Amino acid sequence: MKVKLTLAAITLALASLNTQAAEFLLTDAATGSDVGNWQVTSSTLGMTSGPAFSVEKRRLHGGKQEGVDVLVVNNGELSVTLVPTRGMGIYQVTSQGHRILGWDSPVKEIVNPAYIDLESRNGLGWLDGFNEMMVRCGFEWTGHPGYDDDGHLLTLHGRAQNTPVSMVKVIIDDQPPHKITVLGQVAERTFKKTQLVTMTELQTVPGSNAFSIHDKLTNVSDYDDEYQIIYHSNFGRPILEKGAKVTIAASEISPFNDYAKAGLKEWQTYLGPTKGFDEMVFNLKSLGDSKGNTLAVLNNKAANSGVSIHYNVKQLPVIGLWKNTDTESQGYVTGIEPGTSYSYNTKLQRPLGLVPTIKAGESKHFDLTYTVLRSSAEVKGALKEVAKIMKGKDVKLVKEPLAKE
Amino acid sequence: MKVKLTLAAITLALASLNTQAAEFLLTDAATGSDVGNWQVTSSTLGMTSGPAFSVEKRRLHGGKQEGVDVLVVNNGELSVTLVPTRGMGIYQVTSQGHRILGWDSPVKEIVNPAYIDLESRNGLGWLDGFNEMMVRCGFEWTGHPGYDDDGHLLTLHGRAQNTPVSMVKVIIDDQPPHKITVLGQVAERTFKKTQLVTMTELQTVPGSNAFSIHDKLTNVSDYDDEYQIIYHSNFGRPILEKGAKVTIAASEISPFNDYAKAGLKEWQTYLGPTKGFDEMVFNLKSLGDSKGNTLAVLNNKAANSGVSIHYNVKQLPVIGLWKNTDTESQGYVTGIEPGTSYSYNTKLQRPLGLVPTIKAGESKHFDLTYTVLRSSAEVKGALKEVAKIMKGKDVKLVKEPLAKE
Amino acid sequence: MKVKLTLAAITLALASLNTQAAEFLLTDAATGSDVGNWQVTSSTLGMTSGPAFSVEKRRLHGGKQEGVDVLVVNNGELSVTLVPTRGMGIYQVTSQGHRILGWDSPVKEIVNPAYIDLESRNGLGWLDGFNEMMVRCGFEWTGHPGYDDDGHLLTLHGRAQNTPVSMVKVIIDDQPPHKITVLGQVAERTFKKTQLVTMTELQTVPGSNAFSIHDKLTNVSDYDDEYQIIYHSNFGRPILEKGAKVTIAASEISPFNDYAKAGLKEWQTYLGPTKGFDEMVFNLKSLGDSKGNTLAVLNNKAANSGVSIHYNVKQLPVIGLWKNTDTESQGYVTGIEPGTSYSYNTKLQRPLGLVPTIKAGESKHFDLTYTVLRSSAEVKGALKEVAKIMKGKDVKLVKEPLAKE
Repeated sequence: MKVKLTLAAITLALASLNTQAAEFLLTDAATGSDVGNWQVTSSTLGMTSGPAFSVEKRRLHGGKQEGVDVLVVNNGELSVTLVPTRGMGIYQVTSQGHRILGWDSPVKEIVNPAYIDLESRNGLGWLDGFNEMMVRCGFEWTGHPGYDDDGHLLTLHGRAQNTPVSMVKVIIDDQPPHKITVLGQVAERTFKKTQLVTMTELQTVPGSNAFSIHDKLTNVSDYDDEYQIIYHSNFGRPILEKGAKVTIAASEISPFNDYAKAGLKEWQTYLGPTKGFDEMVFNLKSLGDSKGNTLAVLNNKAANSGVSIHYNVKQLPVIGLWKNTDTESQGYVTGIEPGTSYSYNTKLQRPLGLVPTIKAGESKHFDLTYTVLRSSAEVKGALKEVAKIMKGKDVKLVKEPLAKE
Repeated sequence: MKVKLTLAAITLALASLNTQAAEFLLTDAATGSDVGNWQVTSSTLGMTSGPAFSVEKRRLHGGKQEGVDVLVVNNGELSVTLVPTRGMGIYQVTSQGHRILGWDSPVKEIVNPAYIDLESRNGLGWLDGFNEMMVRCGFEWTGHPGYDDDGHLLTLHGRAQNTPVSMVKVIIDDQPPHKITVLGQVAERTFKKTQLVTMTELQTVPGSNAFSIHDKLTNVSDYDDEYQIIYHSNFGRPILEKGAKVTIAASEISPFNDYAKAGLKEWQTYLGPTKGFDEMVFNLKSLGDSKGNTLAVLNNKAANSGVSIHYNVKQLPVIGLWKNTDTESQGYVTGIEPGTSYSYNTKLQRPLGLVPTIKAGESKHFDLTYTVLRSSAEVKGALKEVAKIMKGKDVKLVKEPLAKE
Repeated sequence: MKVKLTLAAITLALASLNTQAAEFLLTDAATGSDVGNWQVTSSTLGMTSGPAFSVEKRRLHGGKQEGVDVLVVNNGELSVTLVPTRGMGIYQVTSQGHRILGWDSPVKEIVNPAYIDLESRNGLGWLDGFNEMMVRCGFEWTGHPGYDDDGHLLTLHGRAQNTPVSMVKVIIDDQPPHKITVLGQVAERTFKKTQLVTMTELQTVPGSNAFSIHDKLTNVSDYDDEYQIIYHSNFGRPILEKGAKVTIAASEISPFNDYAKAGLKEWQTYLGPTKGFDEMVFNLKSLGDSKGNTLAVLNNKAANSGVSIHYNVKQLPVIGLWKNTDTESQGYVTGIEPGTSYSYNTKLQRPLGLVPTIKAGESKHFDLTYTVLRSSAEVKGALKEVAKIMKGKDVKLVKEPLAKE
C-alpha cells in the first residue's frame, strides 16, 4: 500500500505497512497527545479503486462549542459526523450535502461538556447539549433524573454523552472495499464508584448506505456493577413528517405514563408538527428472530425514504419510542431507542428487571446497524424483515404504564 | 474605502467594500470558526480623519481565565473591555490608561464559565466570577437563588453572564464619525426549557465619552415564556467615595430587606469603605419623561466626575440600588441596576407583577447609554435632566420591603 | 551566569542576570499570559558543574485531561510531576524512569477541573479526578461532604485541588547546588465568601532524594475566616505491599468510624490487595520534638525502601491515616495525611477544635519535606527519628471514634 500522510499523521500513525490496515491514532490521553485538525482521503491513501472516501477531524469554535472536536466520516454515499468530545455520539448523517439522519434541536451548538452541569435543573443539565442523531444514554445509569435508593441524584440519561473520549483511532482496511473503522474510548471512571470503560466502534464501507456500531463495555473494576444503556436514536426531517410510520418487531407496547395512554392505539403513525403536543413515550418489548436479531423501521409518508436500526434483543431487550411531534422550533423529532432499559429512573427499573449486572472484568457487546432506506424497494425490504419476525402477530397493546414516575 | 486587513481578518470579513460599513465576523458558532487574536485600528482601516480608534480581540491565559476572550473597543476617549466568553459583559472602561468605570472585586480573574458551577453554594456559584462593570442578569430569570414553584433551583442572577457568545461581529461605519458597533449573540437554549436568544449590541462613536447598549431579546420558541433582566452596573473607585451621591428619577424607593431600612433616608449618599457594612439594597420605581426616557446619575463628592445611565422605563420599569460600601478588599462598589425586576427570587416577583412575558417569536428591546461625566458641568447637566423628570417632587420613601426572602 | 533560552522564555523571563537566580514566569493571570510548552535544562542554563536537571512544562490532550498543564521537575535523582491546572498537586515522583511515589488510581487521566462538578454525587465530584500522590484538601474547608450549619454543601476535600493556578514561576539559583523552586498561586476567591490565596512552593536540590513544600496561605480579605488543610499524600506500589509498615510520631490514634475499629490494633501494618476491604481510616494526634518537628514513615516489607514526610505539629497538629488496601484495580493505596484537621465534615470538627481561624491579612505557613528512602540505612534512619520523638512511648489506642458522621 502506498500512503501519503501529513507530518502530524506520520508522527502519530501506527506504522502498519505490513499489516492489513492503515491505523491513525488521532487522540490518546495515555500519551497526552492529539493530532489536531487532520484528514485522510482515499486519494491521499492511494485507495482509488472504489468509491472516494475521506475522514476528517476538525476543532470547532464559538459559544459553548469552543474546543469541540468533530470527526466526519464520508464513505462516498453517507457522511457521518461523530463527536469525540461528546462521547463519540453521532451528530448527523448527510447524503449528497443534505441531512438524511438527524433533527433540528433548539440546541444549535455542539456543546462542550465543560459548559454543561448535568446536575442543573434537578438533573436535567443534559438538555443543554441534546441535539444529536444518536446519543448513548449510559452506562452507569440511563434514565430520567431522580434520587436513587442511596440518596444520590442520577442525572438525565447518564454521563457517557458528556464524556470526552480518551482515545480516537481511525482504521482503514488496506484491501478493498477499504472498510473504515473509528474507535473511541469512553471512560466512566470515578474513584470508589465506577470503572465502566466503553470502546465505541463505528464501521462503514465506502459506497454503502449503512453504518454499524459495535460497542464493547467493560467493567474494569474488581467488583460487579450495574449498567444500563439506551441507544437514543433521533430522527426529524426529512424522514419524519405527518403520516410517517414506525414499525418495530416487538411483543408488546405500553404507554410510558398516563399522558401517553391517549396515543397508544396510533403508536405507529406520526402527526405533523403539533403545538401543545409535547411528547409521548412508549415502552416496547423487542422481539427477535431465532438468533435474537431484530429491527425497527421509520419511513416517510410515501414510504420511499426511511431508516432502519438492526440490533439484537439478547444485548438490547427493550426499545423506547419517543414521539416528540411538537412544533418545528421545539424540535420535531422521534426517538427510536433500543436499550437494556426504558427511560424511567433506575430506581423504578430494578423491580422491572431492567438494571442488568456486569461482572468484574466482564465485557458486554452492543451491535447496531443504521441503514438509510432510499427507495420504496428498500423500505419494503425492511418492513418485510419486521413482518418475518412478527410472524403475522400484532404488537400487543398494554394499557397501563409499567411504572409511575 | 481603503482597507488593510490581516489574512485572518480577510478570511472572515464579510466583504463590504460597496456597503456602508466594514464588517468583521470574529467568532461564529454556526460555522465553528473563530479569528483568534485580532485587531483593527483607524490607521489600518484608513479612517484617519477623526479621532484614532481601535478594536482588539485577545485570548487570556492563567488560572480560571484560561481561554477567555476579551474585546477591547478603544474609541480614542474611552476604552471599553467586553468579554465575549462571559456573555459580552463589560469588564471595565478606562480613559487615558486609568479605569474610570468598574471596580476592584475580590475576584481578580476574568473567569471562564467552564470553571464555574452556578449551582454551587446553593445557587451562588455566580459569585465565583463576579467582577464586571456591567453584567446582564437574565434572561431566563434574574434574581437571588431559590427554588421556584416547580422545585427547580434558580441560581443567582441567571445564566446569560456565564454563557460564551455564539457570534461576535464588529461593524465600523465607512463614513465619519465611523461609529463602532459590536454585536454578540447570547443563546440561552435548553431543550424543552428555553429558547431565549439575545443579540447584544454596543455602540460608540470615536472621541465620545459615552457608549450605548441596544440589546434585542427574542423568544425563538413557539411558546410564550417568562423573562427577566437586570443591567447590573457596578462602580467603585474613582467615582465612588465617601460623600459620593446617586440621583435617580423615581417615584418611590423601598428597602430590599429589613437590614436596609436603616439606610433608607440616606439612600442618596455613600459611606467610605466601612468594615461590617456588608450591603444595603433598595428598590426604586423608575420615573420617565413623556416618552419613558429616564436616567440615574452617580457622581463623586466634588461632583466633578461621574457616570450617568440613560434608559427607558417602558423597557426597564424598575431600578435596584446596591450599596456595597464595605472595605476595599471586600469590593467597595455600588450597583445601579435598571431592570424589568428587582433582585428577589422569581417566585417573589410574580406577585409584584415583575416577571413579564415574552410571546412566542416576540422580541424585546433594551436600550441604555452609559456616559462618563468628566466635569462639574457634565455632572450638573445630568442632574438637571433628572430634576426635569422629577418636576420638583421627591422620591417617596416606602418603609417596608416589597417582599420577604 | 550564561543562559541560553528559547524565545518564549526570554519573553517571559524576569531578567535576572545580576541577581541570585534565574526566574521564569510561565503563567500569569495578572497579565493573561502563558508561555505554552517550555523547558529549561542545566545545559541550556550553563549550570553544568553538578547533577544534570531540567524543568519542563507540557500541555496534555485527550479525554478529560484536554488542556491540562503538567510541570516536570527532574532534579537528576527524582522527577516530580506537578499539575498547575489542578492546584499544583503532585501527580507522581519517578526515579530512573520508574514511579517511586504515587499510585494507580482507577482515574487514569489528569482531569481538567472544567470537566469536574464538585457538587455531583452529593458532593463527591472530587472523586472524578483523584489520582495524585499529593493533593491539597482545603483551604476553605477540607473534609467529607455534608451540609454545613448554614445549609451549604461543603464538597469533598475542598476546592484547591480543582483550581487552576493563577501564576507559575520557576526559580533556579545561580550558585551551586542550583536549588530549584516552583511557585504556584492557588486563588480561592469568591465574592462575599472567601479570599484565601495560597502561594504554593516546591523546592528541591539537584541530586537530592527529597523535595520540600513551603506553602503560604494568606487571608487577603478584611475579615477573619476559617481555614482547613490536609496534605493528602498517597502511596501505592512499589512501597505499599503486604507487610509494609507505617510509623508515625503521635500521642494517640483512634478509628475514624466504627468500621475502622477492627483494624485499630494493627494500624501500623498493611494487608496486600484485599477484595472487600474498602478503606479504613485512623485519626492521630501528631507528636513533635521540642520545636514541633515530626515525621511519618512508610516503608516496604523488607524495610529497604520507603518515604518519610517531615512536618511541624504547630502548623499541622493532626495526621490522618487512610488504608485503602482494596484490590489493585480499585486503587491499592495508603494516604498519610498531615493536616490542621481530620477528614470529618467541617461541622463535626468545630467541636473538636480543628477548624482554626486565619485573621484578616494573616498568613499561615505549611512546611513539609518528602524524602525517598532508598536503602535499609535510610529507612532505619527515619525510624530512629520517630523513636527519638516518641521517647519509648507507644501511640495510645483510643477505641472510639472522635465523631460520628
